[in-house]
Amino acid sequence: MEYEEPKFFHVMQYAAAADGDVIDMVSGNPDWEPPGALRSALSEYADLPSESFQYPPSEGLVELREAIAERRNVDPDRVVVTNGTGEANYLALARAFERDAGDEALLMDPVYPYYPGKVDMLGGESTLVPVERDGGLDVPAIREAASGDTALIVLNTPNNPTGAVYDRDAIREVVAVAEAVDALVVVDEVYDHFDLTGEFESALTLSSDRVIVTSGFSKSMAITGFRVGYGVFPDAHVASAKTRHMLVNVTGARPSQYAVCHALAETPPEYYATVRERLAGRVDAFTDALDAAGAEYSRPDGAFYVLARFDDFPGTMANVKRLIDEAGVAGMPGEAFGSARDEWIRFALVTPRVEAAAERLADYFGA
Amino acid sequence: MEYEEPKFFHVMQYAAAADGDVIDMVSGNPDWEPPGALRSALSEYADLPSESFQYPPSEGLVELREAIAERRNVDPDRVVVTNGTGEANYLALARAFERDAGDEALLMDPVYPYYPGKVDMLGGESTLVPVERDGGLDVPAIREAASGDTALIVLNTPNNPTGAVYDRDAIREVVAVAEAVDALVVVDEVYDHFDLTGEFESALTLSSDRVIVTSGFSKSMAITGFRVGYGVFPDAHVASAKTRHMLVNVTGARPSQYAVCHALAETPPEYYATVRERLAGRVDAFTDALDAAGAEYSRPDGAFYVLARFDDFPGTMANVKRLIDEAGVAGMPGEAFGSARDEWIRFALVTPRVEAAAERLADYFGA
Repeated sequence: MEYEEPKFFHVMQYAAAADGDVIDMVSGNPDWEPPGALRSALSEYADLPSESFQYPPSEGLVELREAIAERRNVDPDRVVVTNGTGEANYLALARAFERDAGDEALLMDPVYPYYPGKVDMLGGESTLVPVERDGGLDVPAIREAASGDTALIVLNTPNNPTGAVYDRDAIREVVAVAEAVDALVVVDEVYDHFDLTGEFESALTLSSDRVIVTSGFSKSMAITGFRVGYGVFPDAHVASAKTRHMLVNVTGARPSQYAVCHALAETPPEYYATVRERLAGRVDAFTDALDAAGAEYSRPDGAFYVLARFDDFPGTMANVKRLIDEAGVAGMPGEAFGSARDEWIRFALVTPRVEAAAERLADYFGA
Repeated sequence: MEYEEPKFFHVMQYAAAADGDVIDMVSGNPDWEPPGALRSALSEYADLPSESFQYPPSEGLVELREAIAERRNVDPDRVVVTNGTGEANYLALARAFERDAGDEALLMDPVYPYYPGKVDMLGGESTLVPVERDGGLDVPAIREAASGDTALIVLNTPNNPTGAVYDRDAIREVVAVAEAVDALVVVDEVYDHFDLTGEFESALTLSSDRVIVTSGFSKSMAITGFRVGYGVFPDAHVASAKTRHMLVNVTGARPSQYAVCHALAETPPEYYATVRERLAGRVDAFTDALDAAGAEYSRPDGAFYVLARFDDFPGTMANVKRLIDEAGVAGMPGEAFGSARDEWIRFALVTPRVEAAAERLADYFGA
């Protein structure tokens, strides 16, 4: 299998080995506390009778699937609990290809690098479609790119790395394109709790039998290591997704599912609101510094990343390393996300040191 | 994807809906306590700082991989920690096929039904090779079946459902067959702690670059729901396996890995020995009853299943249901495991009611 190990790890290792103090704005690991109910449920689980340590149903604990279905306003039968959003995306992409409806995936550029990696593993071909300058969907370009060979279109909203929250009408138009060429639309909504506009609407509200929505609790509960995600599949595709899930993983980890299930029921909306407020504050601090540094950027509407372009400082791996060594700030080279933003650098706002990093960048570029 | 949902679930549901008291000898879930250190480590984990709740390395926690490597006497770089043995088998089978070295998998008959399910999902073709009457490998038959189209041979020892522990020399001969046709040999050793002969040796001791060994802690620690398994891959194949693991699952669940890692370090050999003794006692009680019932069976050398054949009572789904209704004992129809044992019924010894079940069978068939 041909797949380049994500540049991610390369940058992390370089930053860790640097001489000076480096602020890590590379990884997507939340730096805040998980819900209290998650910790207490996991403690409680550790003392349950040993029957509770055995296989949960393959598609996930019933109570968890029902809670997800209720929140998503769908039939629980459509929900498959997965080993993180990563597995949900794998199941969704695999389902799209196995229909013999084409070999091509349309991916938005800049692109989260796991998507083309999965497409390649599944024997498909990726076509990158650049988004608008502000990160929004370029529907005419998607329509132009779609053909009889297109098996699926992958969207991610709120978006990593652009921070865009896609317009619901634009998604509806993409779904119409997919219908015309017998493609499925996979919408990865893992950052749905980090919508800063208050206007995000799930693609599930389109009630389309072409749409698979994936998500998970890694980001919203600050537990990337617990591996609890899910896919919501249209009726025609859910049985195949469940079969593949069973044959690949049998089922997901029950301690994690148990903890998430309780946290979902017992965590008040204030938990999520507080995290969003903190994130909004970080966006303010960081974009103020980008202004001072004379950088171009789009203020993120969601997720927790900022893409920035500095004059005469393209987002190559060499420049990212220079920034680590000379400014003490580690970001991700834009060239890791396709070609549309290879001049840019992505900064993740999941560090308590966002303000310090902002000052360093303002000093470095604004001097 | 074509895959029949395992007959397993069908039998379980039928037994659960039965009017009378039914002893469940269908599922492979251990009915004993996990190691105490596993519970305490999971409790401890629930209170760790939130950094410990984030992604572990994709291939698993370093300490866990090192502990596995030490026990298995291999380089830690060859170990990939997976979401249960199920994922490890999926990675191993996928690796064998993606080499473009053929489309066929040789599987031993009777067969654990997930193997042909995975082969089918991966676009391969399964060829079933019957084992000897006592469950041992029929090496000449495997040699006869192998051809240039054979990409892999799957062995499971100690074996589900036969209870056979394969002779190491026989495995060595199978590896030679694989070498001759450019195939890989996947050896699933998930029941390695349930060797009742004291003579089991891992296929890793053959030091062959053709052998992938898979295993896990689901059975040995009585935690099928925790999903911690692993594959030990030859140097030439480990990078591809890690890439697929990353693209499918990103990584496995960290709470589970943490608990298993501590349990591995802190659980004395007596824990495993006690479980084996209990199992040996159940084998005695159950086979005594089979003698009283006039059944044919092979006394299991390992794992925790007994295959039995009753005169004029072939192992069809209809007869399994009759046994549930009329004798109050639920087993698995032999026809679920390929065609070589379709006259037989499999009984899992993972219930505290083995003796009661044995009496019921002796009464039913011996009367």
